[in-house]
Amino acid sequence: MSFRIEKDTMGEVKVPADKLWGAQTERSRNNFKIGPAASMPLEIVYGFAYLKKAAAYTNCELGVLPIEKRDLIAQVCDEILEGKHDDQFPLVVWQTGSGTQSNMNVNEVIANRAHQIAGKVIGEGDKTIQPNDDVNKSQSSNDTFPTGMHIAAYKKIVETTIPGVKQLRDTLESKSKAFKDVVKIGRTHLMDATPITLGQELSGYVAQLNHGLKALENTLPHLSELALGGTAVGTGLNTPKGYDKRVAEYIAEFTDLPFVTAPNKFEALAAHDALVESHGALKQLAVSLNKIANDIRLMASGPRSGIGEIIIPANEPGSSIMPGKVNPTQCEAMTMVCAQVIGNDVAVSVGGTQGHYELNVFKPVMAYNVLQSAQLIGDACVSFDVNCAVGIEPNHATIERLLNNSLMLVTALNTKIGYYKAAEIANTAHKNGTTLKEEAINLGYVTAEEYDEWVKPEDMVGSLK
Amino acid sequence: MSFRIEKDTMGEVKVPADKLWGAQTERSRNNFKIGPAASMPLEIVYGFAYLKKAAAYTNCELGVLPIEKRDLIAQVCDEILEGKHDDQFPLVVWQTGSGTQSNMNVNEVIANRAHQIAGKVIGEGDKTIQPNDDVNKSQSSNDTFPTGMHIAAYKKIVETTIPGVKQLRDTLESKSKAFKDVVKIGRTHLMDATPITLGQELSGYVAQLNHGLKALENTLPHLSELALGGTAVGTGLNTPKGYDKRVAEYIAEFTDLPFVTAPNKFEALAAHDALVESHGALKQLAVSLNKIANDIRLMASGPRSGIGEIIIPANEPGSSIMPGKVNPTQCEAMTMVCAQVIGNDVAVSVGGTQGHYELNVFKPVMAYNVLQSAQLIGDACVSFDVNCAVGIEPNHATIERLLNNSLMLVTALNTKIGYYKAAEIANTAHKNGTTLKEEAINLGYVTAEEYDEWVKPEDMVGSLK
Amino acid sequence: MSFRIEKDTMGEVKVPADKLWGAQTERSRNNFKIGPAASMPLEIVYGFAYLKKAAAYTNCELGVLPIEKRDLIAQVCDEILEGKHDDQFPLVVWQTGSGTQSNMNVNEVIANRAHQIAGKVIGEGDKTIQPNDDVNKSQSSNDTFPTGMHIAAYKKIVETTIPGVKQLRDTLESKSKAFKDVVKIGRTHLMDATPITLGQELSGYVAQLNHGLKALENTLPHLSELALGGTAVGTGLNTPKGYDKRVAEYIAEFTDLPFVTAPNKFEALAAHDALVESHGALKQLAVSLNKIANDIRLMASGPRSGIGEIIIPANEPGSSIMPGKVNPTQCEAMTMVCAQVIGNDVAVSVGGTQGHYELNVFKPVMAYNVLQSAQLIGDACVSFDVNCAVGIEPNHATIERLLNNSLMLVTALNTKIGYYKAAEIANTAHKNGTTLKEEAINLGYVTAEEYDEWVKPEDMVGSLK
Amino acid sequence: MSFRIEKDTMGEVKVPADKLWGAQTERSRNNFKIGPAASMPLEIVYGFAYLKKAAAYTNCELGVLPIEKRDLIAQVCDEILEGKHDDQFPLVVWQTGSGTQSNMNVNEVIANRAHQIAGKVIGEGDKTIQPNDDVNKSQSSNDTFPTGMHIAAYKKIVETTIPGVKQLRDTLESKSKAFKDVVKIGRTHLMDATPITLGQELSGYVAQLNHGLKALENTLPHLSELALGGTAVGTGLNTPKGYDKRVAEYIAEFTDLPFVTAPNKFEALAAHDALVESHGALKQLAVSLNKIANDIRLMASGPRSGIGEIIIPANEPGSSIMPGKVNPTQCEAMTMVCAQVIGNDVAVSVGGTQGHYELNVFKPVMAYNVLQSAQLIGDACVSFDVNCAVGIEPNHATIERLLNNSLMLVTALNTKIGYYKAAEIANTAHKNGTTLKEEAINLGYVTAEEYDEWVKPEDMVGSLK
Repeated sequence: MSFRIEKDTMGEVKVPADKLWGAQTERSRNNFKIGPAASMPLEIVYGFAYLKKAAAYTNCELGVLPIEKRDLIAQVCDEILEGKHDDQFPLVVWQTGSGTQSNMNVNEVIANRAHQIAGKVIGEGDKTIQPNDDVNKSQSSNDTFPTGMHIAAYKKIVETTIPGVKQLRDTLESKSKAFKDVVKIGRTHLMDATPITLGQELSGYVAQLNHGLKALENTLPHLSELALGGTAVGTGLNTPKGYDKRVAEYIAEFTDLPFVTAPNKFEALAAHDALVESHGALKQLAVSLNKIANDIRLMASGPRSGIGEIIIPANEPGSSIMPGKVNPTQCEAMTMVCAQVIGNDVAVSVGGTQGHYELNVFKPVMAYNVLQSAQLIGDACVSFDVNCAVGIEPNHATIERLLNNSLMLVTALNTKIGYYKAAEIANTAHKNGTTLKEEAINLGYVTAEEYDEWVKPEDMVGSLK
Repeated sequence: MSFRIEKDTMGEVKVPADKLWGAQTERSRNNFKIGPAASMPLEIVYGFAYLKKAAAYTNCELGVLPIEKRDLIAQVCDEILEGKHDDQFPLVVWQTGSGTQSNMNVNEVIANRAHQIAGKVIGEGDKTIQPNDDVNKSQSSNDTFPTGMHIAAYKKIVETTIPGVKQLRDTLESKSKAFKDVVKIGRTHLMDATPITLGQELSGYVAQLNHGLKALENTLPHLSELALGGTAVGTGLNTPKGYDKRVAEYIAEFTDLPFVTAPNKFEALAAHDALVESHGALKQLAVSLNKIANDIRLMASGPRSGIGEIIIPANEPGSSIMPGKVNPTQCEAMTMVCAQVIGNDVAVSVGGTQGHYELNVFKPVMAYNVLQSAQLIGDACVSFDVNCAVGIEPNHATIERLLNNSLMLVTALNTKIGYYKAAEIANTAHKNGTTLKEEAINLGYVTAEEYDEWVKPEDMVGSLK
Repeated sequence: MSFRIEKDTMGEVKVPADKLWGAQTERSRNNFKIGPAASMPLEIVYGFAYLKKAAAYTNCELGVLPIEKRDLIAQVCDEILEGKHDDQFPLVVWQTGSGTQSNMNVNEVIANRAHQIAGKVIGEGDKTIQPNDDVNKSQSSNDTFPTGMHIAAYKKIVETTIPGVKQLRDTLESKSKAFKDVVKIGRTHLMDATPITLGQELSGYVAQLNHGLKALENTLPHLSELALGGTAVGTGLNTPKGYDKRVAEYIAEFTDLPFVTAPNKFEALAAHDALVESHGALKQLAVSLNKIANDIRLMASGPRSGIGEIIIPANEPGSSIMPGKVNPTQCEAMTMVCAQVIGNDVAVSVGGTQGHYELNVFKPVMAYNVLQSAQLIGDACVSFDVNCAVGIEPNHATIERLLNNSLMLVTALNTKIGYYKAAEIANTAHKNGTTLKEEAINLGYVTAEEYDEWVKPEDMVGSLK
Repeated sequence: MSFRIEKDTMGEVKVPADKLWGAQTERSRNNFKIGPAASMPLEIVYGFAYLKKAAAYTNCELGVLPIEKRDLIAQVCDEILEGKHDDQFPLVVWQTGSGTQSNMNVNEVIANRAHQIAGKVIGEGDKTIQPNDDVNKSQSSNDTFPTGMHIAAYKKIVETTIPGVKQLRDTLESKSKAFKDVVKIGRTHLMDATPITLGQELSGYVAQLNHGLKALENTLPHLSELALGGTAVGTGLNTPKGYDKRVAEYIAEFTDLPFVTAPNKFEALAAHDALVESHGALKQLAVSLNKIANDIRLMASGPRSGIGEIIIPANEPGSSIMPGKVNPTQCEAMTMVCAQVIGNDVAVSVGGTQGHYELNVFKPVMAYNVLQSAQLIGDACVSFDVNCAVGIEPNHATIERLLNNSLMLVTALNTKIGYYKAAEIANTAHKNGTTLKEEAINLGYVTAEEYDEWVKPEDMVGSLK
């Protein structure tokens, strides 16, 4: 491999000749060999691309950067956003906790690429654009990294998580309506209870997801606050007047998302409660989705020796040894995602607790977990929707058999003969293996006609309508 | 000890003669000897008292309960709320996951106490009030317990947590204003950075708590939704028409809090995402408070060999062996509370994931953790406020010494001579143990006059004003 | 209420006249009103009683404490261990993170009670015994509190947790043997799979608990290491030569448990990884118990519309509205305990991460969670055993019906006709709602005789025997 | 892109022509588009390669697989282990919870590659080797996946985690010895305390890591138990006699690690407590490492306005805006890793709780987290060691200044004049800003000579030696 020499304030570093990055990126590659390379999410890099471009525009507008430099910087940022330089960001999550080296990676790539665009050879001649003095002008890692991670997280949530959850929610809602008259046995404590409709059950899932979406949307205003303009410690040192508001406006314009400058920059650098808050809502969605997926696999269990009240699509052979087996694989992928998100929530919280003074130095790990959770939930919802939820169908024969067997239909008699006598009927039928009706009549508490009039499953599901 | 015989649908049980509870409570005491007795929070019992009274009023109004029974039930509920029967609720959190036995405990105590009020002897004569058919009329454990826990959690949050956090927030805000001109060294990565004011630092904490309060308040609408009226599986079986809305109105009236009936009762029984959501916000506050308390103890460290920039009150001798030692004990209590709340959040999430079908059976453990966290955060904020925050004072001599030593004042030169030359000055001063000014002049980058004009700490903190 | 005046190095404090505690305890009561009073576990207090007595004996033996003082201190310690002074320890967990105030609470109670025993009136005359100079001699809170919490945790684990888990394990093992020939359908992915015996299923639970017990026992050596003798920072300042080893020997003698002095006192004060380690094993047991309890309620689900393969004891009426309902309440208590323990594990870990320099100041919260988890697991296992596990019986009729229905018996044909043809048989039977045998013959892959010879559930469970 | 047709029991699937995988892999790619492709760790694939080869050898030895097939299978497995087919395993973690599709991915790649080796064209002619009947012979996903993940986890722990931790431990141990006479101020509650040596402080870290290594090693026996031989539900259906023990012996031979067959296969499929146990120990190490890294950055804080007692290597420019800044970046990478591992532990625990009946279906997520944590801890320790720990040096001037300032040297007087008088001296000096010696003499409690004799920091650190 051939190398060129790059310099930073600590001296010279050999960098692979075909790479756009500079000395500090290379130092970081060598100093942080922790886990697989390039684990820093590209979404963060793209967030940086938006903000570097916005900073260049703002600096230019406020008179501290020439228009030619602005345009060169912006051009490289656009290239980055088009995915043309994805292989130029080799750093890992497990670097400095401020993400300084990823900020410098972006600065260096922009500066070197701008040099190329200006028709020069990297490493030769005066730098067309300085990584610190130009690309990073009016900025610090301490305000750029949190800005980049807010942009990345916000975009991921509104572009992947929310649409994914809504897609699944919509399917469950339409299924809920389609099955509104499918009366089945209810179950509490996993034990037979009074009847319910399959549509009602699914409506509970819809309500869960709606509450979850609401909770997630409630966190977006906090996430829309950008640290940029705070520079090193939140005071905005070395920024031109009006910079913070203007740069947030540019970011809002470039991303088409409602970003604003953080009212308090000290918080925006020193704490990342916005990530804690958003991830808390992602975790709530994971809790909901776990319940939903688990219920669906319970209802679909069988095909012959389980509950078997619904049928879900058979997407792949379920077993490498048991021929013909079909499994609730989408439920399993979903619940595994939920386990991960619940764990990630702890990582985010732990990272959030541990800032010191003016800077939280758990930025990369917090952003990494938020982005992973947001992606996984969104993707898993779409996968679950397309490959499972849309195909859910009631197994009417089983549903009817299980409904009519149930002893808990006796509850309908409470208001006629009282809880104690009703319990006696149920207990006797359970003991004797007989039907409720037989024992109700045997015990002399109701006549056959009364029983048939009072105990109608379809009348037991509608009180709230 | 003397006993009387109580009965339920399973038969007879011996109950201590001086206790108001009945057979099912006694069974539960015997069947669940897990951890200390009476761990079920009294707040839940009080939540039940509100709802039992509301149910009696609603049942009466809708024609299914005589007014005399209503009044007897209401009278006992009022006694419970006055704390007169606190020793009649001996059950533990670790019982059935629906809280059925605590619901029956309340039903039994109300029925037996009503019998007393009616001038009779418990265990003698026909029951004046039936625990199941009267006290529990139009109810199930499955909708009462979640209602009771929502009432308890909502009250705890608005009566203890939010006021506690606001009290601390207000103090920090007034301190932030008082110290707005105290220029000190900023620190990032725990390393010396550019200046900041003590007021600015504290303003970051205020912003954190304001965001946390907002997040917590965002969860209250979900928590205000009451399951009552759903009865066994959410269908509202055995409730009179209009019951659910009306009973929520009564609860709102009795508690003076904006409770409403849950739009979807199936969710309200089968999932407790509202608790997950509220606890998520409590956890966010814990994350914030941990950062704040940790910063304060770092700043107060010393008195002679630490940072020592602020002085906090000395409330108690700090050591049983080191004479004269004073410790940041309120910070320690606070951060221990935060650790607990972060752990509790996982318990709540795990409980939330695991419902089956129509019923989540982790109600008691979820409620227990939410109530503990809400109480601890509220109490810890007040304790921290009264015993620490109100007494925070700057240690001006130390602040000035540390500020003037700092090499990071060099950052002010970036916009004058560029990042690279500024770095050279700082590195040289660091290596030689000299001052920035000396080296700046030695290196020939600035004159003494320029240095004095450009490097003024008090000018480095105000760019955002 | 009447008061007396107590003094410490900070001045005078009014203390309730009828209480044995002194100035520092009273300060703590006033300064830490966080959560319910007296939340500091009594087990910790008893741990202190052991170590204070041991310290007195060691100090006396090494010539720094007169024998009369030793005996007075020892006498009060014995009274404390007999439970005579349980109401003299009013402090909360949420105090200073070193537990200094609880150490002083014990020192003060011992000193004042010794004064009484010596025939004097508390608050009058010279103190017979000084709380700091005598009771706390050769000690610091920094080494006594961790010693007290190790004693408490070790005792709780060996006296409550391990016996509880073993009791349940033994029952499951005897059930496993009793049901070794009960062939039933196996289930993977909650879907029908090849046969297994009920005894084999239970043997897996036994293996889990055995591994869990092993893991927990593996942590005891670390927990047996006592910090005592390290005093303030681990150097053992102000202790007589040989003190640390001797005092651990006394503690081992008094508790009849194999405690030793920690080889490294710096670790023993500054980190509590021993608690992290032991709680990790408790959490592993919680994970196992959750699986076990969840399986059992799934197998017991019904009685008519669930799986219903086993019958578990009916201990209490299961519903306040559904007459005759019986629920798997012990499974619910157990799984709630598991959720709590998994949450507690995070609290312990968070506390463990956050020590600074020579002292971890999350001692009380870590000890509180370890003790709670150890108690809950032990108690819940006994409760589950007595009220559920001992009564588990197979429901033979249901087991046979579900077994014979299963399509996965086809797996027995893999080695005869290959996976693909076997899959075709199963898929066809599933589609047509027919039996495997019918389709196996229809498809011409086997004869009726071959089918009967090759597909015998009882032959499909024994390959490993 | 060109495709070929592959078939499984569900029908035909189009597969990219240049890939070795078959129908089921392709189905999984299409059905589980969750997160980035190929997230299933390669370590698991390699684990499969070992076990497929071992199974082929065992099957051959026991007479159920011809030697030619054995050799073909083994040859492909060796190629996989050489990394020649890394791009043939495109599946994600978030698939079926049994990992069935990754098992089939391996089966298909082996079968197709064997076909190539046999000189044929994939998709043409009869398959030389059948993926289910040959490669998967005597196996099920249910026993292969757990075997593969145990092999992967065990190898990662003994090859990466343990050596990494030991490397750091060794450095800290040698530093501890090197600095054994560097007396410095101790700190408890972050406040000045009695003296300690820097070597003693570091010895505490060494003790933590030794305990952590011990705890991790304690988990290896459980992890060495392999499920292979249990097949579908643990009964070993379709395996030849003696298969399970023999196949484990082959795996032990091929990996040179002490793997054994699991004594109870039902546990080995249905629960993954071994992963919970090992990850618990990884989490304990994370807790320890967090304390260590946090202490080191506190001690290194400054350079001028912090504690500054040690100097750590300056590896990269610390700030994009503050020239000359150097940060404790390795401490930050390490503590971020710790946050991740603590979160991962919850994901593993949640996965572990949720198995049903004969199969835990959280295998991939559990393995993924264990492998990530084991890798990150090992790598982070090496990175921390090489780039930070080896370069730690005391800053003697600062250490001496801070030591001599401290008021807590007064503790040495406890045994001479009692705790109360000593406290008076310290409090007075603190109030007056004077030295202990001045006030000790002023108050008349000691003479100057006594003070100098009794208060020697170097005598205060050695009591335990």
